[in-house]
Amino acid sequence: MMTIQESMQQIGQQARKASHAMLRATDKQKAMALEAMAHALDAQRGSLQAANNIDLEAGRAKQLAAPLLDRLTLSDRSIDTMIAGLRQIAHMADPVGSLTATTVRPNGMQVAQMRVPLGIIGIIYESRPNVTIDAAALCLKSGNATILRGGSEALHSNLALGKIIRMGLNTAGLPEHAVQVVETPDRAAVGAMITMTDYIDVIIPRGGKELIKRLANEARVPMIKHLDGNCHVYVDKHADLEKAAEIAFNAKTYRYGVCGAMETLLVHQDIATVFLPTLGKRLITHGVELRGCSRTQALLPSALAATDEDWATEYLGPVLAVRVVDSIADAIDHITRWGSGHTDSIVTEHIQAAQQFQREVDSSSVYVNLPTCFADGFEYGLGAEIGISTNRLHARGPVGLEGLTTLKWVLQGNGQIRG
Amino acid sequence: MMTIQESMQQIGQQARKASHAMLRATDKQKAMALEAMAHALDAQRGSLQAANNIDLEAGRAKQLAAPLLDRLTLSDRSIDTMIAGLRQIAHMADPVGSLTATTVRPNGMQVAQMRVPLGIIGIIYESRPNVTIDAAALCLKSGNATILRGGSEALHSNLALGKIIRMGLNTAGLPEHAVQVVETPDRAAVGAMITMTDYIDVIIPRGGKELIKRLANEARVPMIKHLDGNCHVYVDKHADLEKAAEIAFNAKTYRYGVCGAMETLLVHQDIATVFLPTLGKRLITHGVELRGCSRTQALLPSALAATDEDWATEYLGPVLAVRVVDSIADAIDHITRWGSGHTDSIVTEHIQAAQQFQREVDSSSVYVNLPTCFADGFEYGLGAEIGISTNRLHARGPVGLEGLTTLKWVLQGNGQIRG
Repeated sequence: MMTIQESMQQIGQQARKASHAMLRATDKQKAMALEAMAHALDAQRGSLQAANNIDLEAGRAKQLAAPLLDRLTLSDRSIDTMIAGLRQIAHMADPVGSLTATTVRPNGMQVAQMRVPLGIIGIIYESRPNVTIDAAALCLKSGNATILRGGSEALHSNLALGKIIRMGLNTAGLPEHAVQVVETPDRAAVGAMITMTDYIDVIIPRGGKELIKRLANEARVPMIKHLDGNCHVYVDKHADLEKAAEIAFNAKTYRYGVCGAMETLLVHQDIATVFLPTLGKRLITHGVELRGCSRTQALLPSALAATDEDWATEYLGPVLAVRVVDSIADAIDHITRWGSGHTDSIVTEHIQAAQQFQREVDSSSVYVNLPTCFADGFEYGLGAEIGISTNRLHARGPVGLEGLTTLKWVLQGNGQIRG
Repeated sequence: MMTIQESMQQIGQQARKASHAMLRATDKQKAMALEAMAHALDAQRGSLQAANNIDLEAGRAKQLAAPLLDRLTLSDRSIDTMIAGLRQIAHMADPVGSLTATTVRPNGMQVAQMRVPLGIIGIIYESRPNVTIDAAALCLKSGNATILRGGSEALHSNLALGKIIRMGLNTAGLPEHAVQVVETPDRAAVGAMITMTDYIDVIIPRGGKELIKRLANEARVPMIKHLDGNCHVYVDKHADLEKAAEIAFNAKTYRYGVCGAMETLLVHQDIATVFLPTLGKRLITHGVELRGCSRTQALLPSALAATDEDWATEYLGPVLAVRVVDSIADAIDHITRWGSGHTDSIVTEHIQAAQQFQREVDSSSVYVNLPTCFADGFEYGLGAEIGISTNRLHARGPVGLEGLTTLKWVLQGNGQIRG
């Protein structure tokens, strides 16, 4: 009987071998594998949902909360979504092997960079079994080997999905260990994954902030991770106020729970009297609770007083902090001090203000005249995203296929030597 | 009296403030600061060398080895080299603020990525005081704040250089904490740096492999690091053998101690009999010790028998492992198994062999018809390099200014909202 450490080590060795073999995979093979998975998902709904039912029954017995059970459910509709996702990814352009522009050095040697897979990607996630398919597909398309570790509540569902993935890999002649689902529910498997630097090149955790923070604290393997999304909209004195009202309203109310939702509205003092009362009332009518600075309260008496904690909070709910600022510099200072570097937007018609804001706001996405809720890889044209990164290194902001690759230098010469 | 932790925290807070202010720095200012530093280095040779003498005398009293004392010395020549480096970096193109190609989404919003500084870079290095200038200049030009922690043997030299750097920053109106030299020789400062994730965005360690490995094991801050350079040249059956001999000889003998030096030569069996004896004798005559597989020994009887340890070793000296392989696939397998993913080269006139090698060898630099000793940022056209990265994420291979930056998404709209 192997220990968890030993069996994770074995999975890692298998993944490394598969990742080397994946360097020879053609896009035709990868597309064929994804198409075969889509087909099998459709054909095997019955057995898939039977496996899912085992998880759901255990979940009900454990009295899991309703939203958790909902996320755990493989309904016909969620299976359809996975199938559509697989086919979409199959048709995306293969990032692997593409070359940057080539420069020629004085001695005639040619220098370029080639896009290549990261290697082995570990995915650690909670109870959504659809992540098993979505993440495996993106990692496969970008030429990586993947080790998937979902929540123990979804184990039977994930193992059934793993079987379908293996079948797809076999159909296309790709190594079956290119995607591996960790079978043990033991939490020690997670501890092994985040520390096995020889066998995992990057970990992508999906789930609540607390889980991710804890993993990041213990990890030795680099992570592409998402923490806070404390997003701001700043309405400049040169804003088109009608546009500004639509942008701010959409940024807050499109969906309260997404990481790109606006959490603090900053308004230039010169236009606050005209702008804030109408928008404030519209938000309040829509059910949004306002918490404002003293100048905001003077204009919107029903707003509660905002504290420093409000400036720091990602509400992810129908609450909005509002502050009147003296200048664009004050708005940028507020965002620098309280923001989380996720997504921030300026509303202005003034090109110099737009440029200053885009240059000086140090966030992974900086917008002009757009609501922050556009923070999404699909909206950016990435096709599909594995997540949004709040890291500074490597991938920053929405991460698509390209974020799952890296560059290597490729040089061609004709016998030049170094003197 | 502050503890080391507290004083490092203070340095970190000052750096964060400076890094925000650096977002407003123009290239004119950065160039002016670098030019002022170059000028001051020249003007203040006397006081600089006096400070250096304190370190040198202490080093001699501690009986430091001669090569260490040599690296520690700020001779007129090494000061000239620093001055030339500063002026070279001052004239390089500013990477900050440049935009990638812009795409337009169906709703009309424009999506691009802007190159921006990484933030705060920590440099941990040993006894070469010239790193203080070189690293500070590259980090400054790329818009970062820097915290420099050199070896305690070079403390007086580094503090004198730090004064010159601060003067240059002041001259250009840049924040004086944009570059900070840690003043305490206490090793706890290093422990603080590699764990203060709030105040340092990336650590670049410079020095011996053992130091770097130890730091990497304890670090919480991401690192751009260099480990092994176990580099290979594979001479294919389709090689031009004259070219191959020059490439292999240069790869081994250009400099034994550089990370791009060839450590193992792989030779296709079809050309081994013609190729190996002549090259082998030339290398032996040049003072290189050969360690070969049995087929190599049959052709070069003076070669010792190579063991697995030889395939794994970065000699950094006049020793070369030699193996005859059956095929290009065997050569790639050898490199995959034993290599360190640094720099590997194929010598071939056959385009398919070249393509296969460049695709399947998973190293940060892969060459065709070039000696591995070209592994150097200047040779690649990067102008100057902060080091060579053996990481897979973010910067891989020689790291120039661009590797000290990251990308943020910048979107421009006209009031589009998400529906």
